[in-house]
Amino acid sequence: MPRRVALKLEYDGGGFFGWQRQASGISVQGVLEAAASRLNHGNPVPCVAAGRTDSGVHATGQVAHLDLDETHSIGAIRDALNYHMKPHAVAVLLAAEVPDNWSARFSATGRAYRYVIHCRRARLVLDRGRAWHIDSMLDVAAMTEAAAHLVGRHDFTSFRASACQAKSPVRTLDRLDITTDGEIITITTEARSFLHHQVRNMVGSLKLVGAGKWQPDQVAAALAARNRAIAGPTAPPEGLYLTRVDYDPDPFTAAAP
Amino acid sequence: MPRRVALKLEYDGGGFFGWQRQASGISVQGVLEAAASRLNHGNPVPCVAAGRTDSGVHATGQVAHLDLDETHSIGAIRDALNYHMKPHAVAVLLAAEVPDNWSARFSATGRAYRYVIHCRRARLVLDRGRAWHIDSMLDVAAMTEAAAHLVGRHDFTSFRASACQAKSPVRTLDRLDITTDGEIITITTEARSFLHHQVRNMVGSLKLVGAGKWQPDQVAAALAARNRAIAGPTAPPEGLYLTRVDYDPDPFTAAAP
Repeated sequence: MPRRVALKLEYDGGGFFGWQRQASGISVQGVLEAAASRLNHGNPVPCVAAGRTDSGVHATGQVAHLDLDETHSIGAIRDALNYHMKPHAVAVLLAAEVPDNWSARFSATGRAYRYVIHCRRARLVLDRGRAWHIDSMLDVAAMTEAAAHLVGRHDFTSFRASACQAKSPVRTLDRLDITTDGEIITITTEARSFLHHQVRNMVGSLKLVGAGKWQPDQVAAALAARNRAIAGPTAPPEGLYLTRVDYDPDPFTAAAP
Repeated sequence: MPRRVALKLEYDGGGFFGWQRQASGISVQGVLEAAASRLNHGNPVPCVAAGRTDSGVHATGQVAHLDLDETHSIGAIRDALNYHMKPHAVAVLLAAEVPDNWSARFSATGRAYRYVIHCRRARLVLDRGRAWHIDSMLDVAAMTEAAAHLVGRHDFTSFRASACQAKSPVRTLDRLDITTDGEIITITTEARSFLHHQVRNMVGSLKLVGAGKWQPDQVAAALAARNRAIAGPTAPPEGLYLTRVDYDPDPFTAAAP
């Protein structure tokens, strides 16, 4: 009788061609499924994630689920997965048993992302591959004014990848906050779910505002246009982190220590 | 007529065999001097640092000086050094002209270091090589009690590397604070100067306290013993960052933008 296991994952997106298994190239899903298969007598173990992050996008709180015949303790499963995923830049932070009908993707009630922009003249060293490098400071007050236009329930067609497979372009953005710590700008956003490239496309337009190339209300105009070509370019993946997925109840409150 | 230039440097210690030029192996000094030589008609340009960080130790605020015949603007020198140091994990953050008798090492009035400990079961991914990984949380209250014994003017023989070349083992520790952010423990320390391995040796003993292997007052006893063998082991280099060097006046207040 297989058990369903929920996993909280951290990964460095720079080491992968995204979440989704690829015909060629290393994916987070591929590495996790290969490790899980070794715990499952070599049989394939499909893994489902809350969000299929793109190539280069990081996670500190991705959630996935899989079914295992394994009878060991949940802590032993977590440790064995971590062992078999070495040396790839992904780790299981928490593991918990969940009901058979629980889904990392469909049971999720919210997602949170962080986007980090590091503004300075010198190229990045410690933040290399971990932030969007922009060579001078952005106008955060203007970006904050622009961001306010995006919060709420809207048709986000202008901020949606052409390849996006969602049936509806309407989403409710619960949060889009911008904070600074010296030369580092952090954009935090939350919604029940996001469209493909939505966060990076919103950040790309906010950056135009921060650089003085757009007025804040041009973001409102871009949203109203419902036309991807009107909005700004897609921000690079290395600044983006999937930080949290919400469930009710949280399956990890009883995770193995 | 050569000009003396002060540089503020960031580097990822994992990419180098420490600050100091080596017969074999890449050092920060070696990379910086090679880049500076290219701006100086191929002539050698010795560089002096405030602190000769060990192999694996990072810096966000190392300071060095060098003399250049170069007549370009200070901003152009900074950019040219950054260009020539690619792809090594070091960058010049700020550059400023200083008087001929100014020394990154001897003019310094203080140094600040940060030591980061990441406590969790899973191996580190995003913090890999950037923090000391310990597999369970430490007792920070006990560590804070122990740290108080080290602050002030003391003979730090017990926390000094056997290879330390300083004439006196007496130092005045101005600060040794411990803060937490979830599972991450940050130790911040400041002094006019430190002995070789002093920060890592202090952290190694504080970790014994945090893990419950030592009582806090054993740190006081180790200090009083003036014997390196009595104190704890040396903490690994990857958690250590040289974050700031102080000068009066600060040469970088007028740094090129």
